[in-house]
Amino acid sequence: MNKRIIFFILGRLLLIESFFLILSAIVSLIYGEQEYKAFLYTAGLSIGVGLIAWLLNRKTEKVLGKKEGYVIVSLVWVIFSLFGALPFVFSGSTPNYADAFFETMSGFTTTGSSILDAKQIDELAYGLHFWRSITQWMGGMGIIVMAIAIFPILGIGGMQLFVAEVPGPSKDKLHPRIKETAKRLWGIYILFTLAEAVLLYLSNYINPGDNPVTVFDAICHSFTTMATGGYSTHGASIAYWQSSYIHYVIIFFMIIAGTNFTLSYFAMQGKFHKMRHDEEFKSYIGIIIVFTVMITFFLVFIHDNEIARSFRDSLFQVVSIITTTGFATVDYIKWAPFMYVIIFVLMFLGGSAGSTGGGMKIVRVVLIIKNSYFELRRLLHPHAIIPVKFNKQSVDAKIITNVLAFMVIYVMIFVFGTIVISSMNYNLDTSMGAVAATLGNIGPGIGKVGPAENFAHFPDFAKWFLSFLMLLGRLELFTIFVLFSRSFWRK
Amino acid sequence: MNKRIIFFILGRLLLIESFFLILSAIVSLIYGEQEYKAFLYTAGLSIGVGLIAWLLNRKTEKVLGKKEGYVIVSLVWVIFSLFGALPFVFSGSTPNYADAFFETMSGFTTTGSSILDAKQIDELAYGLHFWRSITQWMGGMGIIVMAIAIFPILGIGGMQLFVAEVPGPSKDKLHPRIKETAKRLWGIYILFTLAEAVLLYLSNYINPGDNPVTVFDAICHSFTTMATGGYSTHGASIAYWQSSYIHYVIIFFMIIAGTNFTLSYFAMQGKFHKMRHDEEFKSYIGIIIVFTVMITFFLVFIHDNEIARSFRDSLFQVVSIITTTGFATVDYIKWAPFMYVIIFVLMFLGGSAGSTGGGMKIVRVVLIIKNSYFELRRLLHPHAIIPVKFNKQSVDAKIITNVLAFMVIYVMIFVFGTIVISSMNYNLDTSMGAVAATLGNIGPGIGKVGPAENFAHFPDFAKWFLSFLMLLGRLELFTIFVLFSRSFWRK
Repeated sequence: MNKRIIFFILGRLLLIESFFLILSAIVSLIYGEQEYKAFLYTAGLSIGVGLIAWLLNRKTEKVLGKKEGYVIVSLVWVIFSLFGALPFVFSGSTPNYADAFFETMSGFTTTGSSILDAKQIDELAYGLHFWRSITQWMGGMGIIVMAIAIFPILGIGGMQLFVAEVPGPSKDKLHPRIKETAKRLWGIYILFTLAEAVLLYLSNYINPGDNPVTVFDAICHSFTTMATGGYSTHGASIAYWQSSYIHYVIIFFMIIAGTNFTLSYFAMQGKFHKMRHDEEFKSYIGIIIVFTVMITFFLVFIHDNEIARSFRDSLFQVVSIITTTGFATVDYIKWAPFMYVIIFVLMFLGGSAGSTGGGMKIVRVVLIIKNSYFELRRLLHPHAIIPVKFNKQSVDAKIITNVLAFMVIYVMIFVFGTIVISSMNYNLDTSMGAVAATLGNIGPGIGKVGPAENFAHFPDFAKWFLSFLMLLGRLELFTIFVLFSRSFWRK
Repeated sequence: MNKRIIFFILGRLLLIESFFLILSAIVSLIYGEQEYKAFLYTAGLSIGVGLIAWLLNRKTEKVLGKKEGYVIVSLVWVIFSLFGALPFVFSGSTPNYADAFFETMSGFTTTGSSILDAKQIDELAYGLHFWRSITQWMGGMGIIVMAIAIFPILGIGGMQLFVAEVPGPSKDKLHPRIKETAKRLWGIYILFTLAEAVLLYLSNYINPGDNPVTVFDAICHSFTTMATGGYSTHGASIAYWQSSYIHYVIIFFMIIAGTNFTLSYFAMQGKFHKMRHDEEFKSYIGIIIVFTVMITFFLVFIHDNEIARSFRDSLFQVVSIITTTGFATVDYIKWAPFMYVIIFVLMFLGGSAGSTGGGMKIVRVVLIIKNSYFELRRLLHPHAIIPVKFNKQSVDAKIITNVLAFMVIYVMIFVFGTIVISSMNYNLDTSMGAVAATLGNIGPGIGKVGPAENFAHFPDFAKWFLSFLMLLGRLELFTIFVLFSRSFWRK
C-alpha cells in the first residue's frame, strides 16, 4: 500500500471542496449573512490541510493500485463530510458535531435525511442552504468522477477509482479514455441542472398565483433533483408549491436523474434506439407506471380523492422514492397501510445503474428476477447450462453470483441495522424506515422518519451509525466492506 | 406426464389419511364426544375417493418421472388438507370451509397458525385436538417420507418424490436404499415422540403443584413439538404450565426437532463426532446461544425481570421461533421493540436442513454468509476461483447460485405477500408478521397475529393466500414454483 499517493490525492481533492466552501461564503455575503465566516474558517482549514497533504507527498511515484483506489474512494467521502460538517457547527445551525456530520454525509451521499425540522429549514441561512444543495450535487455524479474530469494526475489510476466509486454491474463507457468519459458525464449533468433551473424559474410566469420560485430556489432544487438528493430550501419540501407545472417538471428531471446517464447521452445524440432497447430503462419505466397506477387507484377509490390530483401525487411520490430523491408533495405515512407499504418496498429498488440514484439498482433487480425464473428451469434440466440474458447478451455466471451476493448482503445489513436502531427503543416501522432510507440514500423513511418528520430525535450513536449506512449504500457496499476483509490488508 | 400413476399414488396416500381420521374418531369415542361422526363421514369419503383413484388406475406402468414426482408431492399436501378440513366443518368447530382449510393446512405444514382463539381452543373437542396434533405429526417428517416407508410401490420412483419433498441443499443418506432411509427417519421420529410424551407425563410427579399433564396433553404436545408444529391443547399454549421442568423438556425436544435427523440418528449410534463436526449444527446452537443471551440481558436490565426466569423465557421463545415450532410461554409482542425485532428476524432462519423445521434453514444462511465474505475476496482477485467450503468440502458453484436464488425468492415472496395482506388494510407489522409466520411455517407472528392473537380476523381471501404460503414454505418454494413454469409443461 502506497500511503503517500493516497495522501497526495486526498490533499488535492480537499481543494475541490474548499472551492465550493468559498462559493457558499460568497452566497452568504450576497445575502448579507454572518454565516460567510463559518465557510471561510472551514475553507481556510481545508485548504491548509489539503496543501500540506499534497505538497508533503508530491514526490511519490504516481501509480495507483486497486487497493489504493478503494482506500481513496472510501476516505474521500468521509473526509469531505468531516470538513463539510464544520460550517453547520461554526454557524450554530446544528446542536452538535454528530448532527452536523449526519447532515453533511446525508448531503454528499445524496440521501437527504435531515436533522432539521420544517421550521429550522425555513429559517436556515441562504449560505447553508446553498451548501446543503451543493454537497448533494457534488455527491450525485460522484466526487471522484468530478476529480477525474478535472485533474490530470488521476488519469493514471483513474479506472481503479472509477470502478471503486461506480461499482454497478453494467458499465458502458462513453469514451475509451476514462477522463473523457468523466468529462462527458459531468457535461450532461451540468446541462440537465441548468435546464431544470430555467424551467423551474419559468413557473413564475406560468403560475403567477403559486408561491414564487426565486432564482435561489430554482438553482438549489435543480442541484438536489439531478443528484437525486432531496434537500429542499423549504420546510414543506415541494409541497411549498401547489401548481402541477412545478410538480411535473420535477418529476421529469427526477426520472432523468434515475436514468443511466450514458443512455441520456446517447439520447441527446439522437440515438433513441439505445434507450428503447435497454432492458433496465424499460423495466424502470414499467415499474414506475405499475406502482403509480396501483396507488392512484387506491387514492381514488379508497381515499375518494380527485383523479388528476391522485395521479400526480402517486407519480410524484413513486418517482421520488424509486429514484431515491426523497422530495415529497404529500405525507405518504398518512395514506392507507397498503400504499405506504408499497412506498417502503420501492425504497429497496433504487434508480438505474450509472444514474445518480441509490438503492439496489433496477438492473440488479431485473437480473435477479430473471435468474430466479431460470433457476426453476435449471432444476428440471440439471445438466443444461442456462445463462441469464440481458439486453440480448448472456450474462456471466460470476456477475450473477456477485449480484445475488450484493442483494443478500444488502438485506443482511438492512436486518442488522434494524436490530441496532430498535435496540435504542424505536419500534419496527421507524427502525426499518430509518435504515432503508439511509442505506438506500433516499431521505425520508416510514414511522417516525416519514416525510413530515426528521432524524433529530435519534441518539448520537444512531446518527453516526446511519451516516455509515449512507456511505455503504452510496458506494454499493463492496467498496467499503473490502476494507474490512483480512485479505485486503495481507501483503 | 403419466396422469394415471399420479392418481394411483394419490389414491393410496388418501388411505393413509383415512387411517388417521379413524384414529381421531376413536379418540372422540373414548371421550364420549359426538364429533366421532365428523371423522367417520370424512374417512368414508376419503376411503371412497382413494379406492376409486387407486383401483381405476392400477393397470398403469409403475414408473415415476421427475415431473410426476413434483406434481404428486405438491398435490398430496393440498388434497390431504382439502379432506382434512372436513371434520372441522362437519363438527361445526370452524365458521366456514376457508377457516377449516387454513387450520388443516397450518397443521400438515407444521405451521401452527390458528383461526381459533384461546377460549375456543380450551373448549375444543378431544377428537379435534387429536386431529390437529396428528396432522402436524404426519406433516413434520413428511407425508411422502411416511408413504415411502410404508408402501412398496413408491420405492420405484421414491427418490424423485423424496427430492421434491425434502429439497434442502445437503442430503446425507442413511442408507443407499431410499425406503430404508425413510424407515429409519420415521423410526427415530417415533422414538423421540414417545420419549417426550413420557417425560412430559412425569411432570405430574416432579411438579405436583403445577397444572396436571394428562396422557392426552403429553401425547398431543409430543406430536406437535417433534413436528415443530406448535398446536397446543390449551389456549394459553405452554404458558398453561409454569414449572421450569416442562419448559425445559419442551425446549430440549424442540432443539432436537430442529436438528438434522440424520445427525440425531448418528448420535444415537454413539457417533457424536458427526454432530460435533457439523457446521450447520454448530451454527444452529451458536445462534440460539447468542440471541438467548441478548434477550436475557435486555429482560434483566431493561424490564428488570428475575435472571433465571428471564433466561428460561428467552431460551424458550428463541428456540420456539428458530425451530419454527411457535409455542409460547410469554407474549413477546409485549417486550421492548428490540426483542420482538430479534424474534421477527429469527423467523426467517428456521431449523436445520433434514429437520422438521421450516424457514430458510440454517445451512442456507451459513452458506450465504460465507459466500458473501468470499465475494469480497473475489473482488480483489477476480481471476482466482474461490469456492465456499462447508464441512471441509468445496461447495459446487451451482449449489451456491441455487441457495442465493432461494433466499432472494424467499424475500421476494415475503415482500409480495406483505403487499397483498396490507392491501386488506392491515398495518405493516401485522402484514409482515402474518406472511413471515406462514411462509416460515412458524405459527404466531407479530402485530395482530402475535402469540396471544389468532388469524380469524383475516378475510377469506387472505386465509387461502396464507395457506398457499404455508405450502410454499413447507416444500421450500421450488417444488411448487416449478409447476408454474412454462418449461415444466412443455412436451
